Amino acid sequence: MTNVKLTLAYDGTPFHGWQIQANVVTVQEILKKAIETITNGRKVNLIGAGRTDSGVHALGQVANFKTEKLLNEKRWKDALNAVLPNEVVVINVELVPSKFHARYSAKKKSYVYRIGFKRSPFLFNKEWKISYPLNVAAMKRALAFLIGKHDFSSFASSLSESESKICQLLKGEIIKDKESIVIRLTADRFLTHMARAIVGTLVEVGSGKIKPKELKEILLSKNRSKAGKTAPPHGLYLEGVTYPTTFL
Amino acid sequence: MTNVKLTLAYDGTPFHGWQIQANVVTVQEILKKAIETITNGRKVNLIGAGRTDSGVHALGQVANFKTEKLLNEKRWKDALNAVLPNEVVVINVELVPSKFHARYSAKKKSYVYRIGFKRSPFLFNKEWKISYPLNVAAMKRALAFLIGKHDFSSFASSLSESESKICQLLKGEIIKDKESIVIRLTADRFLTHMARAIVGTLVEVGSGKIKPKELKEILLSKNRSKAGKTAPPHGLYLEGVTYPTTFL
Repeated sequence: MTNVKLTLAYDGTPFHGWQIQANVVTVQEILKKAIETITNGRKVNLIGAGRTDSGVHALGQVANFKTEKLLNEKRWKDALNAVLPNEVVVINVELVPSKFHARYSAKKKSYVYRIGFKRSPFLFNKEWKISYPLNVAAMKRALAFLIGKHDFSSFASSLSESESKICQLLKGEIIKDKESIVIRLTADRFLTHMARAIVGTLVEVGSGKIKPKELKEILLSKNRSKAGKTAPPHGLYLEGVTYPTTFL
Repeated sequence: MTNVKLTLAYDGTPFHGWQIQANVVTVQEILKKAIETITNGRKVNLIGAGRTDSGVHALGQVANFKTEKLLNEKRWKDALNAVLPNEVVVINVELVPSKFHARYSAKKKSYVYRIGFKRSPFLFNKEWKISYPLNVAAMKRALAFLIGKHDFSSFASSLSESESKICQLLKGEIIKDKESIVIRLTADRFLTHMARAIVGTLVEVGSGKIKPKELKEILLSKNRSKAGKTAPPHGLYLEGVTYPTTFL
């Protein structure tokens, strides 16, 4: 069996997220069907690095599956892109050691969140449109309190199935230009809705509703209701997943 | 009567072009209906600076209409954007002198055409995807032959209703980066499909099918079949329309 690692970009707009569910179209389902078209109907077990919510996009989602089909990396990429709809693109294929597992092998993940100030027909479900000014300096001060290893219960949805809510936020940056703010978060793992809860809270800091130093108390409270609202899904992009160098 | 000038951006994907036609959805129709919602059903004559083809986008289309409705510029903008679908955005409103006419007053127009080398789920109907290499230096030499006042019959669709095919191509530039080529064309006017025929011809120069110096003969032949194929509509954007300073 060959273990095939896929790096994917997708526009999350038409999908009900990554994970296969009954009666709705998901990225995992579309991709699984595309692979099975190429493996002549042989069923595959398609593993994703992480679930993305309905409407969330990906620049570098990672998935893997094992198959007896013998194709080289370029042929897998071309064959899959020929079958997939325009909204899902395989940007890279690697044949990897059999122990590689898209979810369990992941060392860290990176998300970007895009906030836009100008209405644009090209970005309407690609960013969170905000028409009031945001104090980016305050947002940066607030974000600094979250960096490190913490219990992120205050930023996890009640849907989160993880027993431990301890995550290590490795890096956070906020980049502002004339028309947008991009927030990049890198962590060893993310709880359900965690990236969007952090962004929603930072926006409430930017608008003055929450003070930067309150982030410390919010974290310690381990109470979701203390933090800000969950930012909408359509501004969020899974940017990339990092694996140990032994898989490179 | 107030004369209202609108500057518009739109994603051309869901529309059958600008111009109102029976049985299909067009930008002009959507916008006219939005205006008439605000003028309590009073019919308006909505004039566009130029027709864009089905699938062609706009960053700065201009239109105008006359109305007895008294609203200031900001209120017109907010009211229209509240009614319009996400794919059409009013980016600016100006109340202008009554002799302003979006089509007849136009001095020049600028189009940009986007060619992309990488498959992306976010750009699939926003650029012309080309997977072979293009010689940009040759394309630039070819474009230089087109600058100036010429009979552009070789680059006009048989659908063109203009009696004179003489246009002045004021400026042409080609900007290449790692993932795309952007071609910008500015002219006093454009014949039907002219921007796309120029781009299609430049791409055939880039691929080596046409030599740059042949552009001179192609122009002189006044024969559409001598030039290259018409580039697809979804890479084209009406970037802006310039008017005499008396209207500013």
